[in-house]
Amino acid sequence: MTYSAPDQTTTTGPRTGLLPDLTDPVAVTQALIRHASVSPDPGPAQQTLAAMLEALGFTIISLPFGEGAERTPNLFARLGTAGPHICFAGHTDVVPPGAESAWTHPPYAADIADGILFGRGACDMKGGIAAFVSAVARCVQQGGLPGSISLLITGDEEGPATYGTCKVLDWMAEQDQIPDFCVVGEPTNPAAMGDMIKIGRRGSLNAHIVVEGVQGHVAYPHRADNPVHKLLSVLSALREAPLDKGSDWFEPSSLQITSMDVGNTATNLIPAKAEARLNIRFNDLHTGTGLKGWLETICRQHAPTARVTVRISGESFLTAPGAATDHLVQAVQTVTGRTPKLDTGGGTSDARFIANYCPVAEFGLVGASIHKVDEHTTLADLETLTTIYKTFLEGVMA
Amino acid sequence: MTYSAPDQTTTTGPRTGLLPDLTDPVAVTQALIRHASVSPDPGPAQQTLAAMLEALGFTIISLPFGEGAERTPNLFARLGTAGPHICFAGHTDVVPPGAESAWTHPPYAADIADGILFGRGACDMKGGIAAFVSAVARCVQQGGLPGSISLLITGDEEGPATYGTCKVLDWMAEQDQIPDFCVVGEPTNPAAMGDMIKIGRRGSLNAHIVVEGVQGHVAYPHRADNPVHKLLSVLSALREAPLDKGSDWFEPSSLQITSMDVGNTATNLIPAKAEARLNIRFNDLHTGTGLKGWLETICRQHAPTARVTVRISGESFLTAPGAATDHLVQAVQTVTGRTPKLDTGGGTSDARFIANYCPVAEFGLVGASIHKVDEHTTLADLETLTTIYKTFLEGVMA
Ligand SMILES: [Zn+2]
Ligand SMILES: [Zn+2]
Repeated sequence: MTYSAPDQTTTTGPRTGLLPDLTDPVAVTQALIRHASVSPDPGPAQQTLAAMLEALGFTIISLPFGEGAERTPNLFARLGTAGPHICFAGHTDVVPPGAESAWTHPPYAADIADGILFGRGACDMKGGIAAFVSAVARCVQQGGLPGSISLLITGDEEGPATYGTCKVLDWMAEQDQIPDFCVVGEPTNPAAMGDMIKIGRRGSLNAHIVVEGVQGHVAYPHRADNPVHKLLSVLSALREAPLDKGSDWFEPSSLQITSMDVGNTATNLIPAKAEARLNIRFNDLHTGTGLKGWLETICRQHAPTARVTVRISGESFLTAPGAATDHLVQAVQTVTGRTPKLDTGGGTSDARFIANYCPVAEFGLVGASIHKVDEHTTLADLETLTTIYKTFLEGVMA
Repeated sequence: MTYSAPDQTTTTGPRTGLLPDLTDPVAVTQALIRHASVSPDPGPAQQTLAAMLEALGFTIISLPFGEGAERTPNLFARLGTAGPHICFAGHTDVVPPGAESAWTHPPYAADIADGILFGRGACDMKGGIAAFVSAVARCVQQGGLPGSISLLITGDEEGPATYGTCKVLDWMAEQDQIPDFCVVGEPTNPAAMGDMIKIGRRGSLNAHIVVEGVQGHVAYPHRADNPVHKLLSVLSALREAPLDKGSDWFEPSSLQITSMDVGNTATNLIPAKAEARLNIRFNDLHTGTGLKGWLETICRQHAPTARVTVRISGESFLTAPGAATDHLVQAVQTVTGRTPKLDTGGGTSDARFIANYCPVAEFGLVGASIHKVDEHTTLADLETLTTIYKTFLEGVMA
């Protein structure tokens, strides 16, 4: 099977010199970390990955999107054409290292000390990509798998993500390359391997409420119209009842007021304007549009002149447990002896884009050190994750 | 009778040249307005007034208090020693004129046009002082009064008032000069002569509430402690029930939240600190200390770590209607044919200091134009007020 990519480049031939032993997730992680690739990834980290996948027999499609400073390298790689088609999604870009002098080991050295591999991206998520590459390498070494495997790799997950995963998914849909199931390699375990698989995420919405009133002297409140009191009524009404009590797979939705601002320093003055900002993390009982309507209704009731501006950063999504997810759970149980929690909490990831196309679950390394100084993973965890991915692929394709 | 004033000056001899006809309140008002005397009054306005009172037979005590830039000229003048002793309290200082070019008539010209006298202080309150001077001048012309009269005049009522009326009252108490009743000449009539006598004022209290929490990511509210929500609970509790339903002579107390401030622009961040400012105008059912305790209790209940700072600017006070106030009401009725409302609303005045020493009521001109461009009074109102003051003095001393 060949893929037509009119505006894209199908790369061929070797791109790097010596490749590491692809069955060794530690060596693969080190090779990826040594390319600094703060969002958007400038490319070499992805080119190295492409060379590894090509060596394993994958067909590689380079899919850069965006122009100029926004240009984002992405790649889609596929091995085989048979079903089931299992996709691994991840990102080669990393967050900036911060003060490099604060690191015990340089952020791009990929030093190993006492069984721990240090470096920016070690767990978020070059280590996760490496574990998947090594899992596939071991399967290939053992004669291959009955189904087909793809990788959806973006160079901009930590940044605006405008020209990353969602654009590649558009292309995959056009090319009829949508997989049967997708695993996102984000570091989902809070403390130890086997803690947690993410099967969905909450949606997120930001709102800005501005109430204008009529300024006046505090001694004559009947001649003024205090916008602070109206805003207070709105905010109290928003907080009066919980949004919900949670659903089968979700915690209760959470509304956090992040700011209230008037800026009036005159003690004898009723101000003319008051504003507030809030964020809602919502579960599958709500939609962003539904919550926008609810906010507008509360404002109309308590402050008819209030202006509400709402930005929906992402809807909630859920891949209810089913066959493929069960295989992932079983793989975790087999390798770690632990039953992972199926969770939907925390922040957002590119899984929110993938969920629009196919079932998706997220499982990777331990995330405790992500985005921090001295980001790291243990060598043992890299081996465990490699074995889990391999066990999952064998199970789901059996 | 002579007054000893160890550190003060008893002025003698004429201070200005030609005095106007003291029985004419219009001429006296003009003479006073033509001395610009923005707080604190630099003195000449008061010296002119002293010369007028001296010409009427008053003994004048000059009572400057404060040092340097804070030096405040005040005067105490007394005519006669018999009882009852009726005091008139007022201020020669005025608020700044603002943009003089915005005035139809220059603020210190005291121009008259179509029966209206324009100028800074016309109604607040050089016109009020003038009406009292002319009332006394007419009484003197008619052979005097059976009791005694004093004037307590400060040069700083519109400013901080630290070295004004309250210091003069201390001195009056030391000198055994506390009157039986005091009339404050503030412009108490909202729209027309005879509208309103003030027999008390609400107290005023400012509070600043600071709630500290624990900063965190909005996706993980259980790891943070949102101070905005705690502050919101405090403010909602403060606004939940009215402080009271008003008392015999007072409107319900009023709590106005004047500011709420967080200053957090990061949409994904629960902030570490939130603060609010509020003002309470309270009636005679409360004391400043009682309200401070109430604020502290509500904060303890809803935000145990909140810090509350309270400043009591003035307690409420009331001179319940009695003999002297009744004479003032009757004088207003006799002259205007109207029954004035006995009121306790609005802002504060120096009457709050006087109420600690003797019964006090406030009655003066129409206040609609005070502190504004084109402050003015009608000549008719000046004559009406002069007649009311004279009728009151005759009635209360009869
Ligand atoms: Zn990540
Ligand atoms: Zn005044």
